[in-house]
Amino acid sequence: MIDRLIEDIVRKQSPICVGLDTKFDYIPADFLSREYSMNPLQYAASNIFQYNCTLIDAIADIVPAVKVQAAYYEMYGCEGMKAFHDTIVYAKNAGLVVIADVKRNDIGATATAYSSAYLGRTKIGDEEIPVFDADFATVNGYLGTDGIAPFVEDCKKYKKGIFVLVKTSNKSSGELQDLKIEGKTVYERMADFVEQWGSECVGKYGFSAVGAVIGATYPEQAEKIREAHPGLFVLIPGYGAQGGSAQGLVPNFDKKGLGGIVNNSRAILTAYQNEKYAGMQFDIAAREATLNMQRDILDTFDKNGIAYE
Amino acid sequence: MIDRLIEDIVRKQSPICVGLDTKFDYIPADFLSREYSMNPLQYAASNIFQYNCTLIDAIADIVPAVKVQAAYYEMYGCEGMKAFHDTIVYAKNAGLVVIADVKRNDIGATATAYSSAYLGRTKIGDEEIPVFDADFATVNGYLGTDGIAPFVEDCKKYKKGIFVLVKTSNKSSGELQDLKIEGKTVYERMADFVEQWGSECVGKYGFSAVGAVIGATYPEQAEKIREAHPGLFVLIPGYGAQGGSAQGLVPNFDKKGLGGIVNNSRAILTAYQNEKYAGMQFDIAAREATLNMQRDILDTFDKNGIAYE
Repeated sequence: MIDRLIEDIVRKQSPICVGLDTKFDYIPADFLSREYSMNPLQYAASNIFQYNCTLIDAIADIVPAVKVQAAYYEMYGCEGMKAFHDTIVYAKNAGLVVIADVKRNDIGATATAYSSAYLGRTKIGDEEIPVFDADFATVNGYLGTDGIAPFVEDCKKYKKGIFVLVKTSNKSSGELQDLKIEGKTVYERMADFVEQWGSECVGKYGFSAVGAVIGATYPEQAEKIREAHPGLFVLIPGYGAQGGSAQGLVPNFDKKGLGGIVNNSRAILTAYQNEKYAGMQFDIAAREATLNMQRDILDTFDKNGIAYE
Repeated sequence: MIDRLIEDIVRKQSPICVGLDTKFDYIPADFLSREYSMNPLQYAASNIFQYNCTLIDAIADIVPAVKVQAAYYEMYGCEGMKAFHDTIVYAKNAGLVVIADVKRNDIGATATAYSSAYLGRTKIGDEEIPVFDADFATVNGYLGTDGIAPFVEDCKKYKKGIFVLVKTSNKSSGELQDLKIEGKTVYERMADFVEQWGSECVGKYGFSAVGAVIGATYPEQAEKIREAHPGLFVLIPGYGAQGGSAQGLVPNFDKKGLGGIVNNSRAILTAYQNEKYAGMQFDIAAREATLNMQRDILDTFDKNGIAYE
């Protein structure tokens, strides 16, 4: 799946992932369904799914992937999880690679259950059933190897991928992640683990299906990690609303534009509220915002001698 | 909620939490429903819920709490999440404190969404709706303060609690957690953070509603943490199937038997498969196994001069 993701990035000239962190509040009032017979959680979830479909239709030809943030579905309960599931199905049918941003983590036996849910299959009697069946999932490595191994197994078995949290985009990420252990920070240690966990999952372009999450808000740290781990594919949140710039993305990429995918959620989802796109429908505004992001990144790549072949 | 949990532990003389990590495979064949018209995920989830109800009825008078492990519900998809939700409702109605073992973690805005899902309320229009509405949730602190703060806010607002992963019970937990930063391990640093995050949530017995997860498999580490943090309430997994002994639990508790709650999942859920309980129905076997665990802990407490008042 890492190879397909890379090929789709190159084909679309777009190292961009649209984050479907769809809160009910984000949906324009005139788009809301008039079907009021549902309970509030159902109503919210069903509108979120419709919104996602319209948005996916608007951007499917210009980005290779979407990231579906589980928290924004779990907050609407079981109905929300149905919208999460259905969004994954819809995005895959639209030809997109789907990253389930779930940041799951647990001890071995339980990590196996999580991996079954998001990447693998659940065994019931003699049947093996795909459940949420995303292409990639995000995970947290605080528990060490035995909490990650079940995901890596499913990566191999079902050609999936994971992104392990290394250096997160938020302000307080340094409290633990920047602490130094014998000269190396916690996030550098984590990056070492990630390379090791993914050593048997390296694809034909030299990148492993076991990748890392590194925030766009920390370009210096990204550079350090890239120097130590040229084969680490990176999911990069934090561009846009969180303050990451296109120049700050550069250390993650090689001269061919490979090495990472940049996520943008809020600034695309709510582009229609931005005066720059005033008067546009939300899906048109989202498409314009995505195209502007693509231009911003490709221009910056150009200035830094990076180009897709 | 931390005060109520402590009062229920003392009243029932039982610092025990039964873990509902209910896999479909654990359910005895003769208990399975004959309603075969459902799809496999629905069938599995509905049987799991029925199993949980029967088990809850069998142990509700002898333990103060249950822990519901989300992974074992998510693996059965949206139907599984419904069983997760309904199990929480059933357990609360049976008078039990419910810990949602979800180990969630994310940046601030997204952590807010997770906290709405498990502890707080989701706002839809003018309504504020409780969603999974557990009493406690487990969280992972790798992202630092801004990923934990939203949960702490909901702890204050809705009288809930959280347990932050400090030293997990699994074999490889030391890979990251035992690394030393200027003489202090990562898990000790994390315990320091936890105390700080919970400083405004200390209840009337001196324990904070912001507690820690420390595996029963690491008694020496538990002792170190307890010395540094007398007001840290601890959720202790790893007793039983994972190898933790009752003697190893002792460092977590003060002389009045306060300071923690010990989880046991598999050894109770599958007690009926143990030759010790041969011929018993699963719920009777689970009750017996829980009573034996209680005896084991109270006897060990007694030998160590620990007694409930």
